[in-house]
Amino acid sequence: VTHSSGNHAQAIALAARETGRAAHIVMPRNAPEVKRAAVVGYGAEVTLCEPTNAARAAEAERVRVAVGGYFVHPSNDPEVIAGQGTLGLEFLEQVPHLDCIVVPIGGGGMISGVAVAAKTLNPKIRIVAAEPENARDAATSKKAGEMSGHLPGQPATVADGLKTVLGSNTWPVVEHLVDAVITVSEADIVSHTELVWRRLKVCIEPSAGVGIAAALSDHFEQAFGDCRNVGVILCGGNVDVKKMARMFPEA
Amino acid sequence: VTHSSGNHAQAIALAARETGRAAHIVMPRNAPEVKRAAVVGYGAEVTLCEPTNAARAAEAERVRVAVGGYFVHPSNDPEVIAGQGTLGLEFLEQVPHLDCIVVPIGGGGMISGVAVAAKTLNPKIRIVAAEPENARDAATSKKAGEMSGHLPGQPATVADGLKTVLGSNTWPVVEHLVDAVITVSEADIVSHTELVWRRLKVCIEPSAGVGIAAALSDHFEQAFGDCRNVGVILCGGNVDVKKMARMFPEA
Repeated sequence: VTHSSGNHAQAIALAARETGRAAHIVMPRNAPEVKRAAVVGYGAEVTLCEPTNAARAAEAERVRVAVGGYFVHPSNDPEVIAGQGTLGLEFLEQVPHLDCIVVPIGGGGMISGVAVAAKTLNPKIRIVAAEPENARDAATSKKAGEMSGHLPGQPATVADGLKTVLGSNTWPVVEHLVDAVITVSEADIVSHTELVWRRLKVCIEPSAGVGIAAALSDHFEQAFGDCRNVGVILCGGNVDVKKMARMFPEA
Repeated sequence: VTHSSGNHAQAIALAARETGRAAHIVMPRNAPEVKRAAVVGYGAEVTLCEPTNAARAAEAERVRVAVGGYFVHPSNDPEVIAGQGTLGLEFLEQVPHLDCIVVPIGGGGMISGVAVAAKTLNPKIRIVAAEPENARDAATSKKAGEMSGHLPGQPATVADGLKTVLGSNTWPVVEHLVDAVITVSEADIVSHTELVWRRLKVCIEPSAGVGIAAALSDHFEQAFGDCRNVGVILCGGNVDVKKMARMFPEA
């Protein structure tokens, strides 16, 4: 049992199928259809819920009790964080001379794993979180020095994979190992997602575009302009290609 | 000086810029705008011509004489063919156990280079050409046992990179080293291009989708069903992502 709409949901669904278990995924009602289809394609059972972090948690708990299952949090689970850390290991294995890694941040599981792994291998490496301005709980938390949720109301961002909030296990890592949180506007998210489609020919989802937008921002240039080899984790491609392409401006 | 609208044009433009030379590219008037923009982006001079193979050749010759340049044919030039052969070397270096490589065919330069390189390293490897039904000069030539051009009229295919015809240096290689030519319909080209966008998350152009369509065709299954490790060369991403996405059916 988990609540997630993207990579984690698909990973749990696939892992469950491969090991002969049942997977139950709770997804916000407004998650892109393509995400739901992917999870169902891996054989999982999907339950829809209201699009709030509280509703996700409540519905997942209800399902867990109903099916007698085990809950795997999409970002706050220490084993999930450790699994995400293998991204950092692989990245540095392939590009050993990286001096900065930019990772989009939602619940903070991916960046926590990457930060622990990468800074263990190279304490001097910089880890930068990239966050939509409209879902900036990590930036707010960093500034306040304590874990803060979203501003009142639902976060409205095209980067639907980054609407979640930091948790008890990810916040301490973000607080101590993440060098900065860079926030980006909705317009920058779309234009940098398009840049990757057009120039790198990779159909990333907007949540991944957030990382590119941050890496190419003035804020990054000012704070990390000395970093010569910057890696960006393109953290997902869960996107309806027709709908996404429609958001790009006419050539 | 060359006539080409895709990879070759960009390669010549970039090579010329890197070596401080001027590049003059002749392109058919109806080439996708994105291809023209890419070539201009690499600093080349573009001359448009009528969209026939004869007009391309004539205009390139006119430009060559006018600027006193050197003509590099996009597919029939032996050094271009040799360069394309490095694709085969790299592919087999990365996946040594391939027993078949599928390559989209237009002028035949890419498949000629790949066939010579791959069959030198592994004489048992199968090389299969993938061609749009609507531009099937290679299939026709193979069947006739002699080089034949297109059917009368302009080839009408969404795979605009494959409208060219075999030449004096590529036909002998295609005749002797290519095991089969598989033709695919326009509908199959679009649906397999979409498959790559959706599942592999790579924004390929339709000419590259031709290779996937052929590899997943009944014809391939019947003739090469014993091949367990099949490589397909995704030969280009020169595509306007908005226009391409519009061609895909609604989810």
